[in-house]
Amino acid sequence: MRPLVAVDWGTSSLRVARIDGAGTVLEERASERGILTVPPGGFAQVLQEAAGDWLAAPQTLCLVSGMAGSRQGWLETPYCNCPAGFEEVAHALAWIEPGRIAVVPGLCFEFLGTPDALRGEEVQVFGAMDLLGLAGGVFVLPGTHCKWVGAAEGRVQSFATFMSGEFYRVLRQHSILALTLPAEDGPLQEAAFLRGVRHAQQARSLLHSAFSARTLALFGRLPPQDLPSYLSGLVIGEELRSRALHGHQVVLIGAPELTARYALALGTLGCASRSLGSQATWRGHWALARSLQA
Amino acid sequence: MRPLVAVDWGTSSLRVARIDGAGTVLEERASERGILTVPPGGFAQVLQEAAGDWLAAPQTLCLVSGMAGSRQGWLETPYCNCPAGFEEVAHALAWIEPGRIAVVPGLCFEFLGTPDALRGEEVQVFGAMDLLGLAGGVFVLPGTHCKWVGAAEGRVQSFATFMSGEFYRVLRQHSILALTLPAEDGPLQEAAFLRGVRHAQQARSLLHSAFSARTLALFGRLPPQDLPSYLSGLVIGEELRSRALHGHQVVLIGAPELTARYALALGTLGCASRSLGSQATWRGHWALARSLQA
Repeated sequence: MRPLVAVDWGTSSLRVARIDGAGTVLEERASERGILTVPPGGFAQVLQEAAGDWLAAPQTLCLVSGMAGSRQGWLETPYCNCPAGFEEVAHALAWIEPGRIAVVPGLCFEFLGTPDALRGEEVQVFGAMDLLGLAGGVFVLPGTHCKWVGAAEGRVQSFATFMSGEFYRVLRQHSILALTLPAEDGPLQEAAFLRGVRHAQQARSLLHSAFSARTLALFGRLPPQDLPSYLSGLVIGEELRSRALHGHQVVLIGAPELTARYALALGTLGCASRSLGSQATWRGHWALARSLQA
Repeated sequence: MRPLVAVDWGTSSLRVARIDGAGTVLEERASERGILTVPPGGFAQVLQEAAGDWLAAPQTLCLVSGMAGSRQGWLETPYCNCPAGFEEVAHALAWIEPGRIAVVPGLCFEFLGTPDALRGEEVQVFGAMDLLGLAGGVFVLPGTHCKWVGAAEGRVQSFATFMSGEFYRVLRQHSILALTLPAEDGPLQEAAFLRGVRHAQQARSLLHSAFSARTLALFGRLPPQDLPSYLSGLVIGEELRSRALHGHQVVLIGAPELTARYALALGTLGCASRSLGSQATWRGHWALARSLQA
């Protein structure tokens, strides 16, 4: 197999990895050059700065996933409909330099007459399946916009976006809770976090439960330093409440501090989980490259 | 009955009314002198400016409801536990000038180990019951923090706060939806609003459904000018989804543009409603004054 430069190009960050033909990650780099920082027409140059030395090696293939395929990105790449596996995604690659540099399409999925979309997480789910030897499962990718992805037979069958990270941020910074919570989040207070997770299972909407972060403080029932963790538990707990987990083992993919929080919340609700980090991203790029050369 | 000066003193506004012994509102005034604009110790002076001429009339009674009874207000007044009617509230009045000027306490209610609180809405609910000749019912007071109040036997039995107005604002101004929605809300687009209300009945959390305001725009399925109404429908629809309405007729109390929106949403879900405006506030003050003098 050819050497691979894997590029995970998000809204606010650019991460690149050099991977050999056997799938070993030889080197990784990260920068703040997310797509929002790149002027129109400037993407090739920014990639050159980030990984030009790697791209110069003979026979190198480069796969770019994430928001680089969006309207504000390098090359708008139409979403691939679900179900989607290697075959469908490979067919829909958008080649910037034929046979050399391609943008990986995102996926779209329609449910209840409403479309949903993702870009980049499909590669992470492919990587997780490859790493864990799974053909399917429930994959959760926490973050600003947390993705819940259902896969079977090696294909993403469905997914749903939860604006959980963003709800936490806007409530914490811009709602009345900004007056109640301390200025800094501080370390996770596990008991307060789990209290929020459990309360969310009984409350029927975050619109209501979020107010309890204020009243518990008002009545002196939760100390200020516990409130950010409690609110985080309410938000993540609401997300878990709304999903029918059906006894699946969930695979969490993301930054360790986030997957640990979800694992804790899932555990208290009796749901097992495994966690993967950036290795899922790089393995997904590599497995996709492998399928192109099969 | 003595003449009454009714004062509804909220966070961001001050409203006063002069009411005769028969309950007729003779005059109303409103200003921006909400409690957040009043320096410590300055409340008597601000009330004097707003209604000093009325207060000078012999035998006048003055009842102050709302956030003036909060920690940041004129005189912190402990919350009255539910169930609470005229008797309980009258007993818990905080007199600033004995027999002449009193602050009406707010209410608290505990559910699932979590306290909830309101200040001022209790007077509006009392007024609505008095105006409509009801001893109970479901009362909804839309706003930044929408209150759902259950009453029976002339007493508030339970209530719940929904941060609906605030969620709409923070999502609209501070989340990724700020990039998707047009700068101004524009007039209500009824079809888009009701589409949001209906979608919320099937979606199981606003964390997920809110993202559809973005994807429907992204896929060109909803024109930009419809998006604010759609998002408003998602938020209000989520609130209605989480309540068990049990075929009750709901009484809406608030500003006409808000109660009209809730009436529309309730109607599309097969739920009847009646709407009241500021007359409920003044009638509540008067009915409370009447009970004090009975």
